[in-house]
Amino acid sequence: MVSRREFIETAALVGGAVLVTRSSLAEAQQHEHHPLPPTPPATPPAQPRQPAQRPLDRRYQPVVTPNGVAAPYRVVGGVKIFHLIAEPIDEHEFAPGLKSAVWGYNGHTPGPTIETVEGDRVRIYVTNRLPEPTSVHWHGFILPNGMDGVGGLNQRYIRPGETFKYEFECRYPGTYMYHPHVDEMIQMGMGLQGLFIVHERRPRHRIDRDFAIMLSEWMVHIGARRPDPREMDEFNVLTLNSKAYPGTDPLVVRTGQRVRIRIGNLSAMHNHPIHLHGYNFKITATDGGPIPEAAQWPETTVLVSVGQTRNIEFVADAPGDWAMHCHFTHHVMNQMGHGGPNMIGVRTDGLDRRVRRLLPGYMTMGNTGMAEMGAMNMPVPRNSIPMRGAPGKHDYIEMGGMFTVLKVRDGIRSYEDPGWYDNPRGTLAQQATPAELRADGVEVPS
Amino acid sequence: MVSRREFIETAALVGGAVLVTRSSLAEAQQHEHHPLPPTPPATPPAQPRQPAQRPLDRRYQPVVTPNGVAAPYRVVGGVKIFHLIAEPIDEHEFAPGLKSAVWGYNGHTPGPTIETVEGDRVRIYVTNRLPEPTSVHWHGFILPNGMDGVGGLNQRYIRPGETFKYEFECRYPGTYMYHPHVDEMIQMGMGLQGLFIVHERRPRHRIDRDFAIMLSEWMVHIGARRPDPREMDEFNVLTLNSKAYPGTDPLVVRTGQRVRIRIGNLSAMHNHPIHLHGYNFKITATDGGPIPEAAQWPETTVLVSVGQTRNIEFVADAPGDWAMHCHFTHHVMNQMGHGGPNMIGVRTDGLDRRVRRLLPGYMTMGNTGMAEMGAMNMPVPRNSIPMRGAPGKHDYIEMGGMFTVLKVRDGIRSYEDPGWYDNPRGTLAQQATPAELRADGVEVPS
Amino acid sequence: MVSRREFIETAALVGGAVLVTRSSLAEAQQHEHHPLPPTPPATPPAQPRQPAQRPLDRRYQPVVTPNGVAAPYRVVGGVKIFHLIAEPIDEHEFAPGLKSAVWGYNGHTPGPTIETVEGDRVRIYVTNRLPEPTSVHWHGFILPNGMDGVGGLNQRYIRPGETFKYEFECRYPGTYMYHPHVDEMIQMGMGLQGLFIVHERRPRHRIDRDFAIMLSEWMVHIGARRPDPREMDEFNVLTLNSKAYPGTDPLVVRTGQRVRIRIGNLSAMHNHPIHLHGYNFKITATDGGPIPEAAQWPETTVLVSVGQTRNIEFVADAPGDWAMHCHFTHHVMNQMGHGGPNMIGVRTDGLDRRVRRLLPGYMTMGNTGMAEMGAMNMPVPRNSIPMRGAPGKHDYIEMGGMFTVLKVRDGIRSYEDPGWYDNPRGTLAQQATPAELRADGVEVPS
Repeated sequence: MVSRREFIETAALVGGAVLVTRSSLAEAQQHEHHPLPPTPPATPPAQPRQPAQRPLDRRYQPVVTPNGVAAPYRVVGGVKIFHLIAEPIDEHEFAPGLKSAVWGYNGHTPGPTIETVEGDRVRIYVTNRLPEPTSVHWHGFILPNGMDGVGGLNQRYIRPGETFKYEFECRYPGTYMYHPHVDEMIQMGMGLQGLFIVHERRPRHRIDRDFAIMLSEWMVHIGARRPDPREMDEFNVLTLNSKAYPGTDPLVVRTGQRVRIRIGNLSAMHNHPIHLHGYNFKITATDGGPIPEAAQWPETTVLVSVGQTRNIEFVADAPGDWAMHCHFTHHVMNQMGHGGPNMIGVRTDGLDRRVRRLLPGYMTMGNTGMAEMGAMNMPVPRNSIPMRGAPGKHDYIEMGGMFTVLKVRDGIRSYEDPGWYDNPRGTLAQQATPAELRADGVEVPS
Repeated sequence: MVSRREFIETAALVGGAVLVTRSSLAEAQQHEHHPLPPTPPATPPAQPRQPAQRPLDRRYQPVVTPNGVAAPYRVVGGVKIFHLIAEPIDEHEFAPGLKSAVWGYNGHTPGPTIETVEGDRVRIYVTNRLPEPTSVHWHGFILPNGMDGVGGLNQRYIRPGETFKYEFECRYPGTYMYHPHVDEMIQMGMGLQGLFIVHERRPRHRIDRDFAIMLSEWMVHIGARRPDPREMDEFNVLTLNSKAYPGTDPLVVRTGQRVRIRIGNLSAMHNHPIHLHGYNFKITATDGGPIPEAAQWPETTVLVSVGQTRNIEFVADAPGDWAMHCHFTHHVMNQMGHGGPNMIGVRTDGLDRRVRRLLPGYMTMGNTGMAEMGAMNMPVPRNSIPMRGAPGKHDYIEMGGMFTVLKVRDGIRSYEDPGWYDNPRGTLAQQATPAELRADGVEVPS
Repeated sequence: MVSRREFIETAALVGGAVLVTRSSLAEAQQHEHHPLPPTPPATPPAQPRQPAQRPLDRRYQPVVTPNGVAAPYRVVGGVKIFHLIAEPIDEHEFAPGLKSAVWGYNGHTPGPTIETVEGDRVRIYVTNRLPEPTSVHWHGFILPNGMDGVGGLNQRYIRPGETFKYEFECRYPGTYMYHPHVDEMIQMGMGLQGLFIVHERRPRHRIDRDFAIMLSEWMVHIGARRPDPREMDEFNVLTLNSKAYPGTDPLVVRTGQRVRIRIGNLSAMHNHPIHLHGYNFKITATDGGPIPEAAQWPETTVLVSVGQTRNIEFVADAPGDWAMHCHFTHHVMNQMGHGGPNMIGVRTDGLDRRVRRLLPGYMTMGNTGMAEMGAMNMPVPRNSIPMRGAPGKHDYIEMGGMFTVLKVRDGIRSYEDPGWYDNPRGTLAQQATPAELRADGVEVPS
């Protein structure tokens, strides 16, 4: 573990070959878990390289990866150096109460978000600490064929213990991804995936808040210690940056800010329709490049197919707590919400009474629907999560999985979670009074 | 039940605060099942509100909701008042022969189609007669945060017996939806969903026929009285406005009319590709707004993802009976078409002979495919539908589920189902004559 | 079987009514398996038709259907005559080692690719040699209602033994499809589907290489002789032109060529996201027509929904071997890769030792992932394929199903498979040397 101070000192030591700006320091602070190990000062580069002709431009708005981290890097000879370590992670928490042994990069799933600027040259070392061969495909990049990462086709496998070196230029700005291209079904299904952002050198327009989110899906059998990546169809842990609600960080922005959300999808089998409440937005780019403004579609639900990225943009002019989630109804449920018998409409009084003789307090659930099962705090098996949900401002929030909240606030001073939104007087759905019903001529049937 | 006459009288009684135009009367006639109860004349609004400054403009082409109804409303103080009652429905017929206990609004699934005009202010009362809490999310609307309807996040649950009041402005024209945002998987899976159309105040161009269709999917186990909303993957009743073919109303238009079809999708798990025969069309809008003309794509199959709406438009210049359906092959089948053993190519003569000794008339089916199983009128379990189909003009139509027919007719005088189309001479695929085969040099193998 | 020479002679015999250009000869050479039987010269057309007013223009770039064939035709009276025979195919090889009894047209699945030119009039004879009724729907075509092919709705079924005649004008250029519209789920699931290309009469721009690919999905139970078309969700043989990798032909192009890939999808249930490595491309057309240039989206992964076609275009300026595949991880696996127990992380040493006493050589697989299971050449049941893969240039290629390789080569002289690409020095991902690691300050954890 390297401290912030050590990182700065190291940066200073390696001298002219390294440009460390304030923003890269800010980034470095985010990576305390897996910082790039410092250059051992005793062994400087044998042949010091020339500084880059063109100074690296890092005056970009860094992306925010909710629940995630940014990848640290250093600059050597004008090249940005990254290091990814593919490795098992003993314990990843999907949501409070559900931990799993997964695979990731540098201790994280998704791996750290790599950020560069259009025109940057990158050298990315990949160390394999998995029990099987791997490789990395830089999904969406235009690069030399030998750097494309398809095991067997474009390169030799990176076998356990080996470290490979990828090097290429980030020619086009965009939202890209990285993932293994050996034993994909298993390795991506175990969590090996990450986001790779290339910022515009001269941004077309200002973006105030820039979020990056990876969509993934997992089958974690109840009580199992590991996801089952051989599952084809049914997934019970649906995640944004490998977190299921209520484990997902909210997206916090100030009223009036221009917001971009970059969404990538490396799920196994689902093209997820992501719905944002309270706004309509434009789809402004794919990993194939920017969509010309005249060709952009307005949406409230953006379909992000597997292997695609989508940038959406809007001005956050409507304050409040706005839900954002996959609109597949099973993808906003957690582990225990799927399957099981259909109890709707079944009369269970007699049954319950008889079972209670044996099991005091027993109550059959689900016969009137499932709305309050999350809030009831019913007991769940060890290391599994109730079907969904968390307490909200007004009531229990009956959601799980691919669900988060966009929190838009006036005059916010910090992006730390600002709690729940207070609706101005008269703009909250509430129980109608008898006078209101009468005035509007509404007769409520008994 | 209120008659048309009573509705008009009531409208007259409440006086200046109500504007009832011819078109609203026409709408009212559609809602005999669940009209808005009249204002009790004995209790007029305590403080009569001022008429709206800007008169409500209802000179729009109302949408047609095949198999559905429009929502009645009244106007009080310039605000359109609607009333939705979420409730169990004892018996909903998906198609002749298949009835189910479902949930809906005002006795219908989908709920009544709400229609307003850009700029209208609406007040919508929602009464909960379900056995569990609910709420309503106005999907796609730009509205105050407290009106957005996510239970717990934006409001308190509407508990059984309660009536909540939502109020907001219909700022942008478009095709929107409404549905619960509490226990979504169960409530939407049981049928709680509806379409909400906001018409342009000044339409950009004339539309002669404007249809609104909701896509849904259900699992109704053979013989079960209720759908099973916990099912994740396999759905066996696929519906347009909660009807499966042959229960779906055709879309009838006059040759040359400009047609718009608005399609919303609140299915649990499938992004449905809806294919229209005989035409190519433009996708002109989503629930995020109109797509600029230069950005519109031509299609013959429009993908409608869950949580999206799509408007498609075309000029109905080609008369005939044109199929429109989801292109997933399992989504144009009914209950009994899926699963079961694969008999293709199995020789069953011996088996049949032996079984017939016990069961006279027995015949193993499916060994040459399933084309004629619908037409054979084979016995099906009580309250279930044969795998698909209905008699057509030329032969049995081997389709079910999300299938309907666009009927384009010259000089049609009524939109009632005009029967089957007669092809002009020489434009019907028919058996080739020996002379034709000879003339074209086609040799048919024996 | 008709030889090329016989075809030419026949063409000559029928005289002025036939125009055979060099390109049609070239096409004819591709169809040795199922050429159109020659017109019996003894029985000329009873009433010879007038030659077409406007000579047929066949100066188009024919499409390449990898692993497929083009449909032969002859011209009679200015009309292009095709003949499709729907029939069982005793043995179709999906990939080396996996053969199946399927259904197809003219002995092929997909059926032969039909190619015409905008404005052509076609007469297509369809003979039914299946054990059940069929019909053909010309998917995407604007044609008379009686030619649209929906059994029962638009025409009588084509019963076994019958030959039907379809005739219509190819009004708009585009990428279309044909398939049965009787018992669709079974017949399309058994392989009855084909591509139908209408070339522009005056192409907007030059295309050097034009590929046509159909996406399909099958369930072939391990050891079964036939696909099971009643399967709804899980498919284990995923194909490009009915071939699974390594059975798929590569797409070979010369560096700098302008390439179009036309992709149609007649799968049962999946909208496939097709990812191309090394390039970003534009989506230029659907089966609804060309997308105006200003409305085209750039992508690296094109979603092709069921019942849609997509044209993508790019200039092949980057030489190399570039993967192209569906990005669903289960769709680049073959039969044996799905399902089965999850062994990741399970310690099997003890188990193996004990089993080896009974079964010398026994080894539990999958506990470290599945990367090397394809290459291990593990025994598989008769008539089934290992989970995926084939030897590549650098290592075993761990892919199957909907996977192929775009091979871009400088100065290629033939499109026959040119072997693997040699990366220029310095552009191949390789193991990092200790000096490189030191120079870049990368510390590899042990």
